[in-house]
Amino acid sequence: MSNTQTLAVYGLGAMGFGMAVSLLRAGHVVHGYDLNADAVRRFVEQGGAQGLGDPAALDAVVVCVLNAAQTEEVLFGPDGIVAGLRPGTVVLGCATVSPDIARDMAARCAATEVHYLDAPISGGMARAAQGDLAILASGPAEAFDQAAPVLEATASTVHNMGAEIGLGSAMKAVNQILAGVHIATMAEALTFGMTQGIAPDRFLDVIRQCAGTSWMLENRAPHIVAGDYTPTSSVNIWPKDLGIALDIADAASFPVPMTAAALAQFKAAAGMGLGGEDDAAVAKVYARAAGLTLPGEQT
Amino acid sequence: MSNTQTLAVYGLGAMGFGMAVSLLRAGHVVHGYDLNADAVRRFVEQGGAQGLGDPAALDAVVVCVLNAAQTEEVLFGPDGIVAGLRPGTVVLGCATVSPDIARDMAARCAATEVHYLDAPISGGMARAAQGDLAILASGPAEAFDQAAPVLEATASTVHNMGAEIGLGSAMKAVNQILAGVHIATMAEALTFGMTQGIAPDRFLDVIRQCAGTSWMLENRAPHIVAGDYTPTSSVNIWPKDLGIALDIADAASFPVPMTAAALAQFKAAAGMGLGGEDDAAVAKVYARAAGLTLPGEQT
Repeated sequence: MSNTQTLAVYGLGAMGFGMAVSLLRAGHVVHGYDLNADAVRRFVEQGGAQGLGDPAALDAVVVCVLNAAQTEEVLFGPDGIVAGLRPGTVVLGCATVSPDIARDMAARCAATEVHYLDAPISGGMARAAQGDLAILASGPAEAFDQAAPVLEATASTVHNMGAEIGLGSAMKAVNQILAGVHIATMAEALTFGMTQGIAPDRFLDVIRQCAGTSWMLENRAPHIVAGDYTPTSSVNIWPKDLGIALDIADAASFPVPMTAAALAQFKAAAGMGLGGEDDAAVAKVYARAAGLTLPGEQT
Repeated sequence: MSNTQTLAVYGLGAMGFGMAVSLLRAGHVVHGYDLNADAVRRFVEQGGAQGLGDPAALDAVVVCVLNAAQTEEVLFGPDGIVAGLRPGTVVLGCATVSPDIARDMAARCAATEVHYLDAPISGGMARAAQGDLAILASGPAEAFDQAAPVLEATASTVHNMGAEIGLGSAMKAVNQILAGVHIATMAEALTFGMTQGIAPDRFLDVIRQCAGTSWMLENRAPHIVAGDYTPTSSVNIWPKDLGIALDIADAASFPVPMTAAALAQFKAAAGMGLGGEDDAAVAKVYARAAGLTLPGEQT
């Protein structure tokens, strides 16, 4: 295949693993990095390249770690990879970070003529594994061009937000504000209904046909109805992502009371030890405050 | 038509007028009442029955006024209609009220063997005019039976929430919590995006394809993009409806922080003199706080 690229994926968590496997499926040589040796072993079993390889051989680096600190570490830390990349390589920053962080990473990559694409992802674990993500990307044309094979293999939709680094991360923050508030509000409305004698399954049946519905409600309320909090996306994502949104808003002196209220609910859920559960478990914050028994819970 | 009924509709505002016209279209004799003589005149022009008629001739009374106080006034005030109704007539309570109010109205109707259907409506002005509402109804089988011709002519979907009066109103409150929070959060996310350089039309294009979307976002964000705040549903609805939800929650000692945060934003909008504008005008609360210029506004 003439188009075969040599790639590295940093972070083999749910999303990064899915992206890395999608890149393998497209015929690329993919090196996978993760602090979790077990994740690396599973990736090699899927056909991932053995070992770290030569940074100078890479065409693109996908950074799919948890946050800004990890992004900086893998790019510019003591063992940071950017120093070893050849000019013209592209780094795709896929973690949810603030626009300021994205701009800083891009500027530092530019110092060695490495392109940076501000490329946060959306769509969840299942879509990551299928190469079916939505990517909210911004950056110069050269960064998009160099990243094209990666984008093609991992995303069904690439929203090009413009040439300016930071617009991709800003759009991700916008989406996370809406998604996080919608999950918390679904939990609030569902449990409020329970206090009035409306069962969760009835709530879902009716609301999905009413003006009060949302994408997140239809995706997450079934987890509460089933009493299944196996994480597809965990509670712990939200204190992080809504915290980033709040930081951006603070820097702009912009009040975001809905975001702040949702952040408080997810922090309460994490504080109750639910951080590793599916984010629909924010309903337990409401249920415990009111002595309600959710489906699947012991009475 | 053997099934022709003699009906009364109290309240010929946007929703009541649409319901009354739908009932006329179905072949019923419909008396329309409103304090606004102009609304009554327009209804008579559409074929509405002249004058108040004989309450004892009525098969059903649709109460589509603004709130609990008006509902009580038209049913049990000095000129209240219930005293003149014959046993077996049904009253449909369509205003958004608390479950407690619905239970009180039903109990007082029962004293003269008048049925009561707790029947709040959802769907907006355009659907009301088309007989295409969703009705969230609860009440005994006899109330549903007697109300059947009205429900058939006005609603495409009747959610039977059960025999217990109050469940319909509770479900309406659940829907209003979600819908109100979703409108306020749409406004927050859209204006937050503007502070980061994302134009409102771009926000809408991208978010409607992402996990952050909601029914209300897709319905209301276009009003902001177009700069058109002609009310389809006004800001003033929300301090009332979210206030009812908060009252219900308070009575149940149940905390609803998302609802409270949205209520504060709509109260701020009303306080800024925007009460009569489309509810998407809650975006102006955010825009003015941050010096943003929304589409269609003077710079």
